[in-house]
Amino acid sequence: MKVAVIGIGSTNFGEHWDQNLRQLAIEAGTKALLDAKVRGRDLDAIYLGNMSAGKFVGQEHVGAMISGELGLSIPATRCEGACASGGLALRQGLFSILSGQHDIVLVGGAEKMTDLTINSVTSSLMGAADQEWESYYGVTFPSLYAMIARRHMHEFGTTREQIAKVAVKNHHNGILNPVSQFKKEITVEQVINSPMVADPLTLFDCSPITDGAAALILCKAELAKKYVDDPIYIVGSGQASDTLALHDRKSLTTMNATVKAAQEAYKQTGLTSKDIDFAEVHDCFTIAEIVATEDLGFCKKGEGGKLLDEKATEIGGRIPVNTSGGLKSVGHPVGATGIKQAIEMVLQLRGKAGKRQVKDAKVGLTHNVGGSGATAVVHIFSR
Amino acid sequence: MKVAVIGIGSTNFGEHWDQNLRQLAIEAGTKALLDAKVRGRDLDAIYLGNMSAGKFVGQEHVGAMISGELGLSIPATRCEGACASGGLALRQGLFSILSGQHDIVLVGGAEKMTDLTINSVTSSLMGAADQEWESYYGVTFPSLYAMIARRHMHEFGTTREQIAKVAVKNHHNGILNPVSQFKKEITVEQVINSPMVADPLTLFDCSPITDGAAALILCKAELAKKYVDDPIYIVGSGQASDTLALHDRKSLTTMNATVKAAQEAYKQTGLTSKDIDFAEVHDCFTIAEIVATEDLGFCKKGEGGKLLDEKATEIGGRIPVNTSGGLKSVGHPVGATGIKQAIEMVLQLRGKAGKRQVKDAKVGLTHNVGGSGATAVVHIFSR
Repeated sequence: MKVAVIGIGSTNFGEHWDQNLRQLAIEAGTKALLDAKVRGRDLDAIYLGNMSAGKFVGQEHVGAMISGELGLSIPATRCEGACASGGLALRQGLFSILSGQHDIVLVGGAEKMTDLTINSVTSSLMGAADQEWESYYGVTFPSLYAMIARRHMHEFGTTREQIAKVAVKNHHNGILNPVSQFKKEITVEQVINSPMVADPLTLFDCSPITDGAAALILCKAELAKKYVDDPIYIVGSGQASDTLALHDRKSLTTMNATVKAAQEAYKQTGLTSKDIDFAEVHDCFTIAEIVATEDLGFCKKGEGGKLLDEKATEIGGRIPVNTSGGLKSVGHPVGATGIKQAIEMVLQLRGKAGKRQVKDAKVGLTHNVGGSGATAVVHIFSR
Repeated sequence: MKVAVIGIGSTNFGEHWDQNLRQLAIEAGTKALLDAKVRGRDLDAIYLGNMSAGKFVGQEHVGAMISGELGLSIPATRCEGACASGGLALRQGLFSILSGQHDIVLVGGAEKMTDLTINSVTSSLMGAADQEWESYYGVTFPSLYAMIARRHMHEFGTTREQIAKVAVKNHHNGILNPVSQFKKEITVEQVINSPMVADPLTLFDCSPITDGAAALILCKAELAKKYVDDPIYIVGSGQASDTLALHDRKSLTTMNATVKAAQEAYKQTGLTSKDIDFAEVHDCFTIAEIVATEDLGFCKKGEGGKLLDEKATEIGGRIPVNTSGGLKSVGHPVGATGIKQAIEMVLQLRGKAGKRQVKDAKVGLTHNVGGSGATAVVHIFSR
């Protein structure tokens, strides 16, 4: 598999009280077109990752909304898999090019989440869990991930401090990313002493509610150098599923969908986890990053906490994770996150990540999760 | 383009007070697997068309819901483009096979709409229109299509009786389809005298609110005969977009997305509208079928009404349209409709459509629309 990324674009992530979903998506899309030096009329199709615009802003049919707003009549399709919607849109964009049907495709992700009360956002987000067996009984995502955290602490001796270190690291990285929602150093003590959300997870263990959009221009590999000098290539794509409900799984501390999606992507590329120079993983909650680093093979199962003690996942470490700042610090506009992760790949592989640049970055990996792990998508990027 | 359909399955369409979205989708999916003589573990991926489960039943992430319920961990992706969601899912399933990534794919569509009050369903469906420029001001879909009808009558002299004949024909066909929601002959007078919904459209001009699910098993063309003796092939796929808002378009009486999607599908196959033996078109409202038959090239623009007077679109006519009974009589579970149309293709091309069989059916066309025409998908099927 080899498809080029020739353009990237993103809004700032945060609270956009003066921009609606349409404006955010168009801002990201036009920035990506400009970056790729491609005109709207050169596009063959649009794929948009969006989780819940129907509930957040009363608008379904958001693919056509974007093509219409761009003045285009090309195919426009929304892909949804909860918080993995961006990753799924990227994958369908890849497939459409590999199928020979399209040459140049705009792949985006967008979500407008702040126009609702916090209760209503939480309730809408529960659409990602099992409505009949989880949401109905009052479970929320912080509580699902809190159960994963407690079990991880129980099985592997992972400490509260190790979990908090994910937030500290990602806040530090996020300061170096111009689009981040939070640009503030925090300490382990601040994380642990922040307001309790779902024991053991506190406010600073949770990614925020965010408005934002991100976009990529994908191009058939053979055509990429017509447009840019430094195309970045997507060389592997894996996706897998698990049960929606957490209680239906054999283990709380392994996300099988992540393991399987990564296996597929590694197999396609002939690479292993050892060949990955840096990764963007789905840290919707701090514990999720620890579980992900294990499931992706960056360390043994149960040793994700140690990676943080060893500073292995910091910029300059053995395997830098969430150099962008992750969902925790950049923010988590759910449908856009998978695309934002890909943008960090392109910036790092172009050598344009500024102060957060990973030295000699050659191969990177993105990991995007839906719900508590019912969907996982892994992509591998290379220069 | 050539991809095989080797299995079909559908629930009855109607009010399913004893089945939820999950059960409907699983019923259709397992029927399709049995029809194809394929096991769940043979599947490489699932694509599910669903418009608004988030609003209808509080559940997003419905792709993973289905794979989980089937006990599978394969990639599962929801595609959404309002009432064209089924057609979009079918198209992504095709692309995934043509890309070489998958061999056998389950493509489904499902919607559970009756667990809401009628006001709430209407309001949820308005997510398919432009929320900020249409829905917010109180427009509903019957009123949008009523404007199209009035304008068509004004421009082309189309009569109220011609429009009503669409409902009469489709009700007649629907009686012959075991899965139909309505199995009752109606007359032109009954249509015209039924309760007014949006002048000139009355109750019997409108497709109903429906629960239902439909599924196909797609297979790489070269492998199809391993599973079945009579594969049906999809040989063309076109998709196009238009503005979400009706008032942004140049014409109310032509759906440019339909015209463009059909052109693409015809071009791929080297066929023209004259080569199509029968079609399933998107008759969400009676007038929509008249506009579609024109836009697809079955008659000149403005002459769709005459087709009905001439009985050309009846079974046995020159170009039978909606032999299944259409959205009008089979029902319109929005995300499932595009897949239900494909099932009618397969039944007719297999020669298994019973009393509604089109003689010597060799090439058929499906036409699935989102909203008031912002998305259109056209597929061409052949023996």
